[in-house]
Amino acid sequence: MQRRAFLKQTALGAAAGSAVLAAPAIAQEAPNLTWRLASDFSADAATLFAGAADVARYVAEVTDGRFNIEVFPAGQLFQPGQALEAVQHRIVECGHASSVQYFATDPALCFDGGVPFGLNTRQMNAWMRKGEGLTLTREAFAKFGILNFPCGYTGAQMGGWFRGEIKTVDDLRGLKVAADGFAAHILSRLGATPVDIPASDVHAALAQGVVDGAATIGPFDDERFALFEVARNYYFPGWWAGTQQLSLYVNQDAYGELPKAYQTALSLACAAACNDMIAAFDAKNPEALRRLVSQGAQLKAYPRPVLQAAHEATVAACNELSAKDATFKKLYDSMLAFRGKQVPWFRMAEGSFDNMVATLGAPGA
Amino acid sequence: MQRRAFLKQTALGAAAGSAVLAAPAIAQEAPNLTWRLASDFSADAATLFAGAADVARYVAEVTDGRFNIEVFPAGQLFQPGQALEAVQHRIVECGHASSVQYFATDPALCFDGGVPFGLNTRQMNAWMRKGEGLTLTREAFAKFGILNFPCGYTGAQMGGWFRGEIKTVDDLRGLKVAADGFAAHILSRLGATPVDIPASDVHAALAQGVVDGAATIGPFDDERFALFEVARNYYFPGWWAGTQQLSLYVNQDAYGELPKAYQTALSLACAAACNDMIAAFDAKNPEALRRLVSQGAQLKAYPRPVLQAAHEATVAACNELSAKDATFKKLYDSMLAFRGKQVPWFRMAEGSFDNMVATLGAPGA
Repeated sequence: MQRRAFLKQTALGAAAGSAVLAAPAIAQEAPNLTWRLASDFSADAATLFAGAADVARYVAEVTDGRFNIEVFPAGQLFQPGQALEAVQHRIVECGHASSVQYFATDPALCFDGGVPFGLNTRQMNAWMRKGEGLTLTREAFAKFGILNFPCGYTGAQMGGWFRGEIKTVDDLRGLKVAADGFAAHILSRLGATPVDIPASDVHAALAQGVVDGAATIGPFDDERFALFEVARNYYFPGWWAGTQQLSLYVNQDAYGELPKAYQTALSLACAAACNDMIAAFDAKNPEALRRLVSQGAQLKAYPRPVLQAAHEATVAACNELSAKDATFKKLYDSMLAFRGKQVPWFRMAEGSFDNMVATLGAPGA
Repeated sequence: MQRRAFLKQTALGAAAGSAVLAAPAIAQEAPNLTWRLASDFSADAATLFAGAADVARYVAEVTDGRFNIEVFPAGQLFQPGQALEAVQHRIVECGHASSVQYFATDPALCFDGGVPFGLNTRQMNAWMRKGEGLTLTREAFAKFGILNFPCGYTGAQMGGWFRGEIKTVDDLRGLKVAADGFAAHILSRLGATPVDIPASDVHAALAQGVVDGAATIGPFDDERFALFEVARNYYFPGWWAGTQQLSLYVNQDAYGELPKAYQTALSLACAAACNDMIAAFDAKNPEALRRLVSQGAQLKAYPRPVLQAAHEATVAACNELSAKDATFKKLYDSMLAFRGKQVPWFRMAEGSFDNMVATLGAPGA
């Protein structure tokens, strides 16, 4: 999308690039500043949206109210999926998004969000902070003039709601599935037809047979849509990502104009928001799942051949994208190498502990 | 230990309670302040010690150098295990510690660090931030005049180094094991004799047969002690905690005197330090384990009957402590209820994703 066309769509074209400064910012050590944040999430998606609200609150508190960030949920200034461009063109100074949404814009950006058969939450955190993840994803975002900061995690997701059962790969062929990003691409390679519809329309689309299934987030987020009424089969695992990392997108020029302390405030606030969001999903998902099951959701594991086919399609897609795109290749190779080291260690240390606790009998028994 | 006796042991008795203020703190919005932090970790334990150093760096950066925290590694002002009392008596304003170390002082404090067969890292983060964990552990710390902030995680740990094999529970009887905290208590209930010796002396103690085994942290931290030279059997899982949460202990009065923005700076810095530490352990442990194995460490899973016996001993210990101590009971009941909801969800969502990735074949294949 061209800048001009994009700006016409917004009420903010006239205000592009104007952070509200109460006084010349550069000269002052602790200037009063107001930024705008465009969230790609609606306020209804409470846990995802809270990431941006948390960042704004923390930044205001730690700067004694001097650095304020006004948060706009998706639908107010921009539609979902427009945060990247809004930040790129500095119509807003920052945005909150899942980089998996921008597969169509630039597949390499997905490594900032989560790729099929990729890293789980802990591994993603480690790759970003102590591996090459942050450096390499920032190389990918540089062409958009954006600095990305990890700002929230969903944890492992469920593998979608389906009207019928998925017993073989053939059952996916011709199936219309509400999905986007990298997941949609892999589903289409498996013969399904991904359909990009807003989460709020999925229930009606399933009820009317417009789609046969839907890739969603997890129990707590899924609960409010009551999809079990129209598609009982609730599959796991969510093979299209081991976690979804959310990110704060910050316009590089706007960031460069911040006093150093405000830059640190942003980055600390994002770190805290990471912990808050994964804590919220982890705390809420188990009970939401229980309620969904009691209302009729049928938990089903994807058959292994289906997962194997999805994995093969993912490897093929990543190899094709790597051949065309050096940035994608660098990120893919780095992620694979990191995952290769992480997986056996996690299996032994975390996996054996978790399995032990799960199988030792009832709590306190 | 009485305050007077404790103060006599320190070079800092005379300075007790005196934060170095450049100007009256309360009246100023952004005063220059210097705090002292006593770490329970030596600088050699680089990843654990880094938690405190990270907090100090972040707080200084976000307050533009106004709020400084001087970090003292264990051995400088205090010996390991003295941070709690140093903060309680405001000899220093804050400390960095693992609350599992204070089992002898007050068993309830262990819930702030990690208990046998307890929560894994994600579950602990969720219990602290979105469950009852922080509120209830703060009730336990209130009698010490301390506010605890989660400030680092180790992740799941290994289950210790042993000269001989542990094939049955009988093999633990009479065994001398370097261990402390709750782990030591459970080991003694299983018939072993826990011995409290500094990590740096464990190699010699194993070589000389002073001890037969040692409970340690994990591959990266264990590597520098080269214990495989004297005790090849490296067991998993580390059943005495699903993670070790480290904490910043802050003297309540000192905290109350801080401007609100500095209070937020402390709490954001701790949140960021949590992410940094678990990222560091996760990034470093896999390669450290590989090196340990190549040098002769023998990986061994604890036999299931041994784990069952340890679990039974833990339940018995927790029930006894609950009968004597209402605070312990409240924490234990809350942790068990939380764990009971978390475990099936983690097993399905995270577990099925992790198993899938681990068994789908070589990376990129």
